[in-house]
Amino acid sequence: MKTLTKEIWMNAPRRRAIISIHREVQQLVRESGVQEGIVLVNAMHITASVFINDNESGLHHDYELWLERLAPEKPHSQYQHNGYEDNADAHMKRQVMGREVVVAITEGQLHLGPWEHIFYYEFDGMRKKRLLVKIIGE
Amino acid sequence: MKTLTKEIWMNAPRRRAIISIHREVQQLVRESGVQEGIVLVNAMHITASVFINDNESGLHHDYELWLERLAPEKPHSQYQHNGYEDNADAHMKRQVMGREVVVAITEGQLHLGPWEHIFYYEFDGMRKKRLLVKIIGE
Amino acid sequence: MKTLTKEIWMNAPRRRAIISIHREVQQLVRESGVQEGIVLVNAMHITASVFINDNESGLHHDYELWLERLAPEKPHSQYQHNGYEDNADAHMKRQVMGREVVVAITEGQLHLGPWEHIFYYEFDGMRKKRLLVKIIGE
Repeated sequence: MKTLTKEIWMNAPRRRAIISIHREVQQLVRESGVQEGIVLVNAMHITASVFINDNESGLHHDYELWLERLAPEKPHSQYQHNGYEDNADAHMKRQVMGREVVVAITEGQLHLGPWEHIFYYEFDGMRKKRLLVKIIGE
Repeated sequence: MKTLTKEIWMNAPRRRAIISIHREVQQLVRESGVQEGIVLVNAMHITASVFINDNESGLHHDYELWLERLAPEKPHSQYQHNGYEDNADAHMKRQVMGREVVVAITEGQLHLGPWEHIFYYEFDGMRKKRLLVKIIGE
Repeated sequence: MKTLTKEIWMNAPRRRAIISIHREVQQLVRESGVQEGIVLVNAMHITASVFINDNESGLHHDYELWLERLAPEKPHSQYQHNGYEDNADAHMKRQVMGREVVVAITEGQLHLGPWEHIFYYEFDGMRKKRLLVKIIGE
């Protein structure tokens, strides 16, 4: 079995941001030399997501409004968690969008559909945070 | 390591539909000859889900109403993404229901609880779309 | 390839409860002897979740209120599924929080960020239910 393990540091300049990590993951799959296997990509922090969807800015705008409607940031006082922090909404938004994706590797490539694109979604940014890429296969 | 890779084509006759893919996945696990491992089952399109839940038509009806309440299809004009398309709601519903499932294979069988059933959820149908089954193990 | 398969029985004393399973999973990773690989942890029942988030009681309280707002339990009669049962809301809450997590194993340890903690979320308790830990790697 071959494996590759790589932590990637992120530092979003705003509280919330959708950032493509597609090329980095593609590149790591190539570096791994794995022909058949899987790649796990996950946020290492609990106020961020890794997800797969469309690389289209209108949709990303729509996600922002939609998640804010499902789990509003303010007023901060509506959440018990915010006795210590102000990011309870971020812990909720991340559950909707998910922690991780698992993608197949076939013939040495990410095995994705035509519009699948891998993103990191930051819900509580302006600080250094990590995501993890773990590849296993042979 | 043994692997099996299989794309399955779907063509739902309606915009939205819940379709069992349980038997196909079971059959592919058998074909793979894998005794111990995992199977990844994922939508290859970004307006569809693969999920595990109850094979009960009342619940499937309830999911329809619930997802429509969380992410309404209409009016189409409420979403920026719909400048080009009319399926922004489908990109949201799919995030709630998830892109993929990962299921253990133990002693050559899908290792599932008594009511776990694998489904494909189409949110923007009436066209050909694919899902992927990837099995790894030995 | 090394594998470890373990079903863990749960019996929550209330309808809903968030229960840490972090130490059990850590212990099983150690027992497996796997140095590089992945661990899949999933609910075996369709009215429960396995998820990763903060080990903070205020947030857990917030999740309770938030999920009840997204998918209210009552009135039971609002759901077709409840012709036979009273747990349709539990099938919805579980989709928001997810069925499973996949976590990397690196150098024989769970490869997690500083605040990541693995939980079982029961949405229809007061009965015996199982979750599954499946480890593969070498």
